[in-house]
Amino acid sequence: MPERETRRMTVGDFLIRRLAEAGIGHLFGVPGDYNLELLHQLEDHGTVEWVGNCSELNASYAADGYARLNGMGALLVTNAVGAMSAINGIAGCYAEHVPVICICGSIPLRSIDRGLGMHHSMADGTWDRFLGAFAQVTAAHARLTPRNAAAEIDRLIATAWREKLPVYLELPSDIAYLEIEVPDGPLILAQPSSDPERLASCVTAIAGRLSAAKSPAILVDLDADRFGVADQITALATKMRTPVAVLNTAKAVIDETLPCYVGVYNGKASAQHTLDAVENSDCLLCIGYRPIEVTTGDFTAALPAGAIHLRSYSVDVGDDNYQAVTLAEVLRDVCAAVPQVTDRVVTRPAAAAPPVDTDGAADLTQTAYWRAVQDYLRPGDVLLVDNGTSYALFGLQLPSGCTFVGSVNWGSIGYSVAALLGTLTAAPDRRHLLFVGDGSFQQTAQELSTVLRHDHKPVIFLINNGGYTIERGYLGKTESYNDIATWAYAELPKMLRPDTAARSFVVRTVADLRDAMSVSNDTLIFVESIMDRFDSPAAIAASSNRGAELDYGPRGPQHEEGAQLRPA
Amino acid sequence: MPERETRRMTVGDFLIRRLAEAGIGHLFGVPGDYNLELLHQLEDHGTVEWVGNCSELNASYAADGYARLNGMGALLVTNAVGAMSAINGIAGCYAEHVPVICICGSIPLRSIDRGLGMHHSMADGTWDRFLGAFAQVTAAHARLTPRNAAAEIDRLIATAWREKLPVYLELPSDIAYLEIEVPDGPLILAQPSSDPERLASCVTAIAGRLSAAKSPAILVDLDADRFGVADQITALATKMRTPVAVLNTAKAVIDETLPCYVGVYNGKASAQHTLDAVENSDCLLCIGYRPIEVTTGDFTAALPAGAIHLRSYSVDVGDDNYQAVTLAEVLRDVCAAVPQVTDRVVTRPAAAAPPVDTDGAADLTQTAYWRAVQDYLRPGDVLLVDNGTSYALFGLQLPSGCTFVGSVNWGSIGYSVAALLGTLTAAPDRRHLLFVGDGSFQQTAQELSTVLRHDHKPVIFLINNGGYTIERGYLGKTESYNDIATWAYAELPKMLRPDTAARSFVVRTVADLRDAMSVSNDTLIFVESIMDRFDSPAAIAASSNRGAELDYGPRGPQHEEGAQLRPA
Repeated sequence: MPERETRRMTVGDFLIRRLAEAGIGHLFGVPGDYNLELLHQLEDHGTVEWVGNCSELNASYAADGYARLNGMGALLVTNAVGAMSAINGIAGCYAEHVPVICICGSIPLRSIDRGLGMHHSMADGTWDRFLGAFAQVTAAHARLTPRNAAAEIDRLIATAWREKLPVYLELPSDIAYLEIEVPDGPLILAQPSSDPERLASCVTAIAGRLSAAKSPAILVDLDADRFGVADQITALATKMRTPVAVLNTAKAVIDETLPCYVGVYNGKASAQHTLDAVENSDCLLCIGYRPIEVTTGDFTAALPAGAIHLRSYSVDVGDDNYQAVTLAEVLRDVCAAVPQVTDRVVTRPAAAAPPVDTDGAADLTQTAYWRAVQDYLRPGDVLLVDNGTSYALFGLQLPSGCTFVGSVNWGSIGYSVAALLGTLTAAPDRRHLLFVGDGSFQQTAQELSTVLRHDHKPVIFLINNGGYTIERGYLGKTESYNDIATWAYAELPKMLRPDTAARSFVVRTVADLRDAMSVSNDTLIFVESIMDRFDSPAAIAASSNRGAELDYGPRGPQHEEGAQLRPA
Repeated sequence: MPERETRRMTVGDFLIRRLAEAGIGHLFGVPGDYNLELLHQLEDHGTVEWVGNCSELNASYAADGYARLNGMGALLVTNAVGAMSAINGIAGCYAEHVPVICICGSIPLRSIDRGLGMHHSMADGTWDRFLGAFAQVTAAHARLTPRNAAAEIDRLIATAWREKLPVYLELPSDIAYLEIEVPDGPLILAQPSSDPERLASCVTAIAGRLSAAKSPAILVDLDADRFGVADQITALATKMRTPVAVLNTAKAVIDETLPCYVGVYNGKASAQHTLDAVENSDCLLCIGYRPIEVTTGDFTAALPAGAIHLRSYSVDVGDDNYQAVTLAEVLRDVCAAVPQVTDRVVTRPAAAAPPVDTDGAADLTQTAYWRAVQDYLRPGDVLLVDNGTSYALFGLQLPSGCTFVGSVNWGSIGYSVAALLGTLTAAPDRRHLLFVGDGSFQQTAQELSTVLRHDHKPVIFLINNGGYTIERGYLGKTESYNDIATWAYAELPKMLRPDTAARSFVVRTVADLRDAMSVSNDTLIFVESIMDRFDSPAAIAASSNRGAELDYGPRGPQHEEGAQLRPA
């Protein structure tokens, strides 16, 4: 066996080198005494830039947002307190299929070997509890030692990249400066190639079904984005004139201006032409389909029997299950194998309703708000959408080249505010729009500080409507537990950075909103829109009402008089 | 066997009833669709008050702060996203021995039974990951069902109370309104009584050693507070004229004005008379001693051979280990068994240095700052102290009846800001002082909103010195990773509550600080003190320097020229 080419490097330098080779140009996080030595190496190295956050949860959200646009992200936290603050964001990466490397500067091996109590621990002689917690929410985890570091660093980064899932790595603080033998060559990140027979059989089966179908269709979930096959899906759909619908989780993954695009499928809550295209298809190709209540119109989705399921590394066609096949190869070969179709007509979404004459001086409503947002969107925008009434964005028709960044499965409120820092860092030349409600904003508001510190210029649309309006549709329409404190939100940029050039607007009418939207985007723009707490987009109130039935069951309190905010 | 008296109640009502019976009058948390039904029941019930937070991490800190003063605390979060956001605070409760009930409104059993994907989950058919994560950081955990709820609720609450540790409970959202059979009688919370022979033997051994000793002493860690034995320790020390030292974790647990109190023992970093009392004792009684580097002067503690170790439910005397003994009973009986001593002299801490004439117009220094704080303290104050240079408070001499609330073992920065809400809620009639640095404050600053919303009137002392000064003593004295954004901190109260009567001060000189301290405390007072980023209390810089040796080892970068902030 030929010897591998190796060289000597410190553990820390090797880790940083591998991050850079994986395309990670920025590291988010919070310094702590157990990770300062790696930060020191990072500064010496110069290839990966440090972006310090206000909190570790925010760092995990930022790394997630960064990875959505960059392909991979990473953060650095300190033992236990930092890691456990970040774990919600890391678990969210698991739920949303985002490859993020969570690096934890941890207890020195010296102290573990000797059983010495250290701060940032349970002080009870145990060291593995946090590895154990992260084992629940990551694809792989390890504590580095000088003997395993070279192998584990590569295993963890490759696993995150291959599975599009987060991993967790503990770097004891006393080994970062120790020299180990490491591979000389760069990190190779490549999806495994398929088993040739399985691939050929699978492609034959799918292409045969597709070619014979009268009404084939494609239903896209978020893995189409994560595994980078949106273009292949578009090519297949275009070649066969096949309608493509997306789940809300995959909003904007397929260019919405394409002739084949038919909208967001959400069970019985879908537009009729979208529902028809999906449910009446005689050959539905599902890409990474993960049905949950909020992606299926609360389990009213009715996929045709015999739908074909393509996953990242496996396929189901009828009774046959194919393993060792890779999504991109399957799509590539299916597209090559199917005939060109020229005579099929795809029913497109209706054009947006013509603008209604609105009284510019009237109080701003959700309806008017989202109509104005529709007009404001531009090709190539990055759209960060938090949970809540901001989900109205699912109903908008997006221009070409937009990217949707949200957390529909995981649904952690406040995610978008810190994820914004990540998307801005990954793609500073694009326009980034944040849509967030007041309740979500209060979770992570301080990370706007880091956005301002780095002179980013997003446009922030905050809905100030006094609380958790989406929850009022579940239960407690008027109950105080759904109320929150009323901040002077528009003052925040100036408080976080007194010398900021950011422009803030407090908007109460349509005219106010249109004025704010007419401002040129050469600074950060913060638009606080004041709306009624009982004003909800109808689809969102309806969805919450249905959700309450699932959540509380037939004996729940949701049917009490006035318990729920209902669609207007 | 006689039948237990039972009655029928809904699961949710029973849970609320048990919380109230455990002395929990307030429930912290964030609403989410999986917990709204319990909030509905809470409002109907009326015995436990809801205190909504900006984030779940903050809720966990608030519940911790509440439990420190109230004996027990609780919070309510939603599945996965809420629970995982709170887990750092819950793990902190484990490290710091604080009994907190973390209630998670979780996925309905209907969906678990049917394997239906739901939001706030991994959307991969697994449901137990978060139970698994909490198993790492709690004394007990359970998912409630109608069949186990009555037993598990009592088991979890009793375990938290008995062990002074957190527990985790999942309440599926579709069972809160279902009726079950529950015990009629109230929850009994009582420490187990000791095995009589073990107790007697143990007391005989301890009392014999103490009575024969020439220089007995007592060293107190935080369990003395958690298990409520501070008064018994004081009684024993007073009866025997025995010096009592505390670890920094147990600051203020023993009244510092007592003749027997000799200060904070911290290994070689201790005052000489404290070190002598502890290290030269021929019979040292340690209460719940947990040595970690930050409580032992970085492992320079040298307890005398043969120190006796009393723990919450076990004792070590020489080679003998006693199980089934309860701390309070041991101390009670030891105190009864030892002779009264009247002729021993305890060397007290030196009186505070006489005030030096300070130039009131000079820039504020840490030295002058803490001297002014010393003068500001009053008997009965609740002192919330975050990690960082605020640890200078360990060096102050506290008036009678003060309570220290901090997180020395766990050391999660930002803890104090949200814990403040909890202590204020538990003891609204006491004066609460928060000591926090800018880096810590930025982690959890938004929870000040809830403090303001509830019209609390703490005094907040914030040090604005441009970053993580305590870390600069480890590594990166001048490195930008230890810098943070400069907020206009004093503007925050008004941003969070525009109609607030809170008074804010930006302090740059001693005279400014004394002025701010002279204001009457009928509103919230926010004092932002601007100090140099390289100005550190000498003991803290020295401790960080020593910590760097432990953290980075002999090959670490801490010895590079200018790498560390060193004691002035």
